[in-house]
Amino acid sequence: MQIMHSAKERLRRAIRDIQDFPRAGVVFKDITPIIEDGQLFRLAVTVFGDLYKRKSIEQIVAIDARGFLFGSALAYVLGTGISVVRKKGKLPYKTIAASYDLEYGTNTVEMHTDSIIPGQRVLIIDDVLATGGTATAAVTLVRQLGGQVVEAAFLMELSFLHGREKLAPVPCYSIINYQTP
Amino acid sequence: MQIMHSAKERLRRAIRDIQDFPRAGVVFKDITPIIEDGQLFRLAVTVFGDLYKRKSIEQIVAIDARGFLFGSALAYVLGTGISVVRKKGKLPYKTIAASYDLEYGTNTVEMHTDSIIPGQRVLIIDDVLATGGTATAAVTLVRQLGGQVVEAAFLMELSFLHGREKLAPVPCYSIINYQTP
Repeated sequence: MQIMHSAKERLRRAIRDIQDFPRAGVVFKDITPIIEDGQLFRLAVTVFGDLYKRKSIEQIVAIDARGFLFGSALAYVLGTGISVVRKKGKLPYKTIAASYDLEYGTNTVEMHTDSIIPGQRVLIIDDVLATGGTATAAVTLVRQLGGQVVEAAFLMELSFLHGREKLAPVPCYSIINYQTP
Repeated sequence: MQIMHSAKERLRRAIRDIQDFPRAGVVFKDITPIIEDGQLFRLAVTVFGDLYKRKSIEQIVAIDARGFLFGSALAYVLGTGISVVRKKGKLPYKTIAASYDLEYGTNTVEMHTDSIIPGQRVLIIDDVLATGGTATAAVTLVRQLGGQVVEAAFLMELSFLHGREKLAPVPCYSIINYQTP
C-alpha cells in the first residue's frame, strides 16, 4: 500500500496546471509530463496493469485521442486488442454513434460496428474523467455492440464534476483524484 | 526470416480496403482490424520492439492520433516516454509549430517546447507513411527542440506516394509496403 501511495503521489506531482486552456477561466490539468517521462509512463501503465490483470479483461476500448496513450500500452500488457471510440467522421468502416451534451451544444462519438465481439469483457480507458459525457457514450456504444463493460479507468478524475455518478452502476477507477477545482 | 515474413503476411492480410473514404475515389487502408485483435496487435508491436531495442532509442515521438496506438505500446516495451505531435490547438502548454502542404491548403502540427531533451535519440512513429508531409513536419519539430531523429517507423507505407524520398536522409521502416494504389 505504501508503494502504491508513493506511485500515485509521483504521478500527481508531475501533472501541471495550465491557466486559461482551452478557454479563459479554465485551469487545464496537463498530463503530458507523465507520458513524456519513461519512468512515470511505465508507472502509470503498471498501476493499471496490476489492477486489471486480475479482472479477465478481454478488450480495451480507448477514447480518442489521449485515451490511446494509455490504452495501447495497457492492451499490450494485458494481451488484448484495442477498440477505439472516435469523434464523428474519423472511422472509415460502418459505425454506430452516440451523442452527449456539452456546456454549449452536443458532441458525437462513433465505434466500428464490428469492433466488439458480443459477450466480450471490456475495460474503457481515457486520460480524464470529468463530467462523464464521453465515457457514458462509450458505455452505450459498447453495450449496443453486445460487450460487457467491466469497468472504466482513468489516469485522473475531477470528482467535483460527478462523472462517477453519471457512469454508475459501471464501476470507475482513477489513479489520481482531484476533489476540488 | 521465415517467421518475420509470416508475421508481415498476417498483418497485411488483416488490413481492409474501404472504398471512397475519406472522399469519393479514394481507397482507404483500414488498420483497425490489426489493433482490435490482441494477437495481431502484439505481433505488430513486437516487430517494432525487436527492431528498435537494438537502436538505443531514448524517446518515442508519436503522431496524433493513430500513431499513439502503436507509439504507446512501443514506448512501454522500450522503457521510454512518448512525446506527441498534435494538430494545431490541441496542446495546452507552450508549443512550436510546423506546416506542410496538402492537396488543397496546408496543415499545421505542434509539439510542446519542453517535450524533447536536447540530444535525445528519437524514433518517430505513425500508422501510415503516405506523402510524408506529417512525418517531415515531425522531424522539423524534433530537430528544432534539439532531438536526434534516429528513424521513422510506420505500420504501413504507400511507397507509390514517395514519402520515403521526402523524409531522406532520415531512414524509414515500415512493416507493410504497398507499391501500387
